[in-house]
Amino acid sequence: MRIAVLGTGMVGQAIAGRCAELGHAVTVGTRDVAAATARRDRDGMGNPGFGDWSAARPEVTIATFSDAAAGAELIVNATSGGASLAALGEAGAENLANKVLLDVANPLDFSAGMPPTLLVKDTDSLAEQIQRAFPTARVVKSLNTMNATIMIHPELVAGGHHTTFVAGDDSGAKATVVSLLWELGHRDILDLGAISAARGTEMLLPLWLRLFGTLGTPAFQFAVVR
Amino acid sequence: MRIAVLGTGMVGQAIAGRCAELGHAVTVGTRDVAAATARRDRDGMGNPGFGDWSAARPEVTIATFSDAAAGAELIVNATSGGASLAALGEAGAENLANKVLLDVANPLDFSAGMPPTLLVKDTDSLAEQIQRAFPTARVVKSLNTMNATIMIHPELVAGGHHTTFVAGDDSGAKATVVSLLWELGHRDILDLGAISAARGTEMLLPLWLRLFGTLGTPAFQFAVVR
Repeated sequence: MRIAVLGTGMVGQAIAGRCAELGHAVTVGTRDVAAATARRDRDGMGNPGFGDWSAARPEVTIATFSDAAAGAELIVNATSGGASLAALGEAGAENLANKVLLDVANPLDFSAGMPPTLLVKDTDSLAEQIQRAFPTARVVKSLNTMNATIMIHPELVAGGHHTTFVAGDDSGAKATVVSLLWELGHRDILDLGAISAARGTEMLLPLWLRLFGTLGTPAFQFAVVR
Repeated sequence: MRIAVLGTGMVGQAIAGRCAELGHAVTVGTRDVAAATARRDRDGMGNPGFGDWSAARPEVTIATFSDAAAGAELIVNATSGGASLAALGEAGAENLANKVLLDVANPLDFSAGMPPTLLVKDTDSLAEQIQRAFPTARVVKSLNTMNATIMIHPELVAGGHHTTFVAGDDSGAKATVVSLLWELGHRDILDLGAISAARGTEMLLPLWLRLFGTLGTPAFQFAVVR
């Protein structure tokens, strides 16, 4: 499948790299290709700068948001939540139309320091904002409730015995996403229904962040046991 | 232990009944004892009215909020979240002072219909509101992330292999609560630290409510696998 991953951070790198390994044709979309590929600084978690990451993966193409989205069948929003609507705007509504848009971002607001709060919550969600802004995109929310490493290697925690939520208004788009999740190793994939269910999964982030602090590692996951 | 359970609804009934079975001296606190014991109507879930429930359990004493709290070593706030501060005010700050106050309520707002939203969130929580209003009470948040039946019989879902969160500023109070949780059958009890962690567990409710709808049963629980 031709996949565009928008965003060059830890999450974008993880998803783009793993999808390429699995044989998909992957393009990473970014605002400024020259600036992104020049980036050598490691991030706060010690991950390589995007330039080094990209140099080691010639099979992954780098392009502008709009060029990446234009050529893709499935688009992953892996930008930071506060910048997602702007990034998708640069990708262009015409390049998102009728495409599956997998939104893995969380609307975190770090402006008042740690822990971040949520920019949108309770009666709305980032996924719904995206769906309203791009009504012909087929938005599916998933993967936003776990660390990037677990997104692409779910087997690393408890042998993969944990739960991955999906939400979206388009059943066909959800089926496409579920198929990709299955390829990544996700086995307990729980369809929560319409895109409004993203309110609940995005509101899981404060607990996720607290658990990260308490457990001292992001190597955990939620399971819905039943 | 002398336990006061404030609230006569499904959650109060469950906790009071089970604690009495376990041999604790249990008093249920309510605003108006005569009105509560006269209640015969079943609730929306088919549970008996409090009068019938109480008549079948002579070992459980019924008293006003203040009389119940005055005689207790541990007080459980099982009132509905929107009414909790008023109910605890009726219980009386002097009767809560230095007591362990286990808060199992959620600040749900049903005023705009279903699904409810949260009255407080993100930068505050009901548990913190209670702690601020009654600074000498030793507030512990727990059990608010699961159905009443699972609170008292955790073994009914996945043999009890799921996670129960606790949060609070007083370690001794948390130890008392953990001991009671253990008696109830909880085994994976995860201490999230200070009472501010209640923000995260209360914000789990929108996802809990969505899962209730999706799964068609409240017989599920969250597990943090790691």
